[in-house]
Amino acid sequence: MQRAAKLFDRVIVAVAVNEAKKPLFTLEERLAMVRASIQSVPKAKADWFDGLLVDYVQKQGGQAIIRGLRAVSDFEFEFQLALMNRKLNKDIETIFMMPKDTYTFLSSRIVKEIARLGGDVNCFVPEPVRRGLSTKFRKQEAPCP
Amino acid sequence: MQRAAKLFDRVIVAVAVNEAKKPLFTLEERLAMVRASIQSVPKAKADWFDGLLVDYVQKQGGQAIIRGLRAVSDFEFEFQLALMNRKLNKDIETIFMMPKDTYTFLSSRIVKEIARLGGDVNCFVPEPVRRGLSTKFRKQEAPCP
Amino acid sequence: MQRAAKLFDRVIVAVAVNEAKKPLFTLEERLAMVRASIQSVPKAKADWFDGLLVDYVQKQGGQAIIRGLRAVSDFEFEFQLALMNRKLNKDIETIFMMPKDTYTFLSSRIVKEIARLGGDVNCFVPEPVRRGLSTKFRKQEAPCP
Amino acid sequence: MQRAAKLFDRVIVAVAVNEAKKPLFTLEERLAMVRASIQSVPKAKADWFDGLLVDYVQKQGGQAIIRGLRAVSDFEFEFQLALMNRKLNKDIETIFMMPKDTYTFLSSRIVKEIARLGGDVNCFVPEPVRRGLSTKFRKQEAPCP
Amino acid sequence: MQRAAKLFDRVIVAVAVNEAKKPLFTLEERLAMVRASIQSVPKAKADWFDGLLVDYVQKQGGQAIIRGLRAVSDFEFEFQLALMNRKLNKDIETIFMMPKDTYTFLSSRIVKEIARLGGDVNCFVPEPVRRGLSTKFRKQEAPCP
Amino acid sequence: MQRAAKLFDRVIVAVAVNEAKKPLFTLEERLAMVRASIQSVPKAKADWFDGLLVDYVQKQGGQAIIRGLRAVSDFEFEFQLALMNRKLNKDIETIFMMPKDTYTFLSSRIVKEIARLGGDVNCFVPEPVRRGLSTKFRKQEAPCP
Repeated sequence: MQRAAKLFDRVIVAVAVNEAKKPLFTLEERLAMVRASIQSVPKAKADWFDGLLVDYVQKQGGQAIIRGLRAVSDFEFEFQLALMNRKLNKDIETIFMMPKDTYTFLSSRIVKEIARLGGDVNCFVPEPVRRGLSTKFRKQEAPCP
Repeated sequence: MQRAAKLFDRVIVAVAVNEAKKPLFTLEERLAMVRASIQSVPKAKADWFDGLLVDYVQKQGGQAIIRGLRAVSDFEFEFQLALMNRKLNKDIETIFMMPKDTYTFLSSRIVKEIARLGGDVNCFVPEPVRRGLSTKFRKQEAPCP
Repeated sequence: MQRAAKLFDRVIVAVAVNEAKKPLFTLEERLAMVRASIQSVPKAKADWFDGLLVDYVQKQGGQAIIRGLRAVSDFEFEFQLALMNRKLNKDIETIFMMPKDTYTFLSSRIVKEIARLGGDVNCFVPEPVRRGLSTKFRKQEAPCP
Repeated sequence: MQRAAKLFDRVIVAVAVNEAKKPLFTLEERLAMVRASIQSVPKAKADWFDGLLVDYVQKQGGQAIIRGLRAVSDFEFEFQLALMNRKLNKDIETIFMMPKDTYTFLSSRIVKEIARLGGDVNCFVPEPVRRGLSTKFRKQEAPCP
Repeated sequence: MQRAAKLFDRVIVAVAVNEAKKPLFTLEERLAMVRASIQSVPKAKADWFDGLLVDYVQKQGGQAIIRGLRAVSDFEFEFQLALMNRKLNKDIETIFMMPKDTYTFLSSRIVKEIARLGGDVNCFVPEPVRRGLSTKFRKQEAPCP
Repeated sequence: MQRAAKLFDRVIVAVAVNEAKKPLFTLEERLAMVRASIQSVPKAKADWFDGLLVDYVQKQGGQAIIRGLRAVSDFEFEFQLALMNRKLNKDIETIFMMPKDTYTFLSSRIVKEIARLGGDVNCFVPEPVRRGLSTKFRKQEAPCP
């Protein structure tokens, strides 16, 4: 997100409301974590949306959807999604960026699994998410070595 | 399917009964959509089956299973399935064909997600499926631009 | 597993306790099948664990995690898992081995699906698993051609 | 090819003339090997072509191009080729079939490398190719165990 | 490139000088084709570079490298390249965009092969490249249907 | 290699003699770099071979071939190679290990390209290779930040 903020005038980190997926954190918890993560980046704000992402972007006057790519398995689904979004609204581009090197190999599925099993995910997630996960799984927060 | 009908004397579009997967449409709805999709192709008929696909094909006197391939992620699973089917019945071949260019990038997962969010899938699915999705999600049907 | 036993002094086949995944077989059934599969290999023993695999390996005084690789789709997830495990405990290596040629193409998802549909999986799984699947789906066991 | 012959009335095994690729065998050698491989299949004949494959198929009055798929890495290139061929001639379909299980994992690149290093490829290739490779690398032909 | 120009203030289409790769067109021909392709986009200019791309971008005062992604096989190499470029210069981002739908499936390798075999690539490439290919292979230019 | 040495009693780093591939370094240079890289690991020795790798391993009384896996594109080729090697000699296992995190994303193709273009590969390769590359491309060796 810091990387995106260097390139663009305005960046919104938009959390999707998706009841069906039963996310680990509530919308409010997710927004709080996002806000804590971006507080040092003045250009960025946190928000949420339901419905189609392209409709949300249009309403915000945005020009592009930024997605992070981590792995080959990510890529094919993301590509289909981006082609579909272009069909739905040809004025909104999807651009892909790479996450920071440290986290490259991490899928959220693996991080959550480690946290659930009592493993120490301290060093794999940003500070605010770490605090959220500790609270969720009622564990004491350890420092990151 | 039109493509398959050009190459083979008889084509059956066979819908699998799979309660476990909780499909969006009932068996009857799916058969109706298939029938509407193939009505202009005299060589083709719609049918359903439960149990193993190879057993169904054998009973019908068929010689091959035709599968559509869209994406790399499809491919590996389809390939395992085809090898397994060959083991189960070595007289039945699996052959793979490509979908029409327009739909190449679409997984049914993405189409259903768009429809669920109120997006316009009019131009991404055959006419009968479009009508089925509109009814299912109680939306007015828009013309495809 | 026989292959691993040729290379290492001691091999444990460790079954993960994972209630969330609702496995087809109970822990006891899975352990019984593993024990039957390894009875001819004196160096190998069966065990179970919950919590993190790296913690279990550490407690056992093990040096490496051995994983089977079958398909490209396996590979990426396994690789992420292995990198994560290295982060969690840098003294434990993950090494990958290939399954026997015959079973290369089989994902357990496909085998279970075939068994559920009444198909004959006799020749796709080791003898003890075959017996387990027959009992589970109340089918008579057929000989493998 | 035997598999294809079961499904179609007429099958041509067409060898591409491609000077640029400097194939291991000459056109004549390749045709001889193909002819020896198909002699027991009356529906099949061997031929060669230069120029575009779709033009050759059109001239022969063929309806489809049959390609074998072995591996994920094959798939993406083959898929692009097939889409391109459909663009070049929309009346000619490409269909994909799977090779016999035994040879699934073999790329010709690996087989040739083994043969070059003096390894025994006897059991990895059809009889006529084996004879061709033995002659090429001046080795005595060993029986396949 | 039109897509990139909508998002960014300044876009340079930079052609790499790479003698080793023996490209089909000379540097001058490639620059001419690029210039013809972008003449309607005032924000864009054509240029060439040798040496490292990140050094060129730095000298130009650029902030990001834009790469097109077409296929899964592209992705892995591009990702490695982008990670490497980030290591070489952490202030320059790589962002990925999707090509226009029509050209999605085309690798330049396939287009050149078709052109070499006398096939009609008129409708697969932008107008200036079409003209360049016709000249190169001394063919008469046909209109795109 | 240090990782492998922890698991096995004896490790040989074997350099293949392959004139056809025209490697950047001569056999002698490659052996010197390998020797420098392993000098702190008493269990390890450097060697070279021509012909088939499985024959070399057999002659050395080795039990397994250890290969590093980096990327999905590596994986499929390595897997084919390993299946082939098992066919050629069923007593020799192939096992796969992961490289150190830092180098995960690096293919030697990219490193060599960077070095050729005058880029600084100091921090991407082990010390002895760095020295070898500096000599080869006549550059002054810079310290790794």
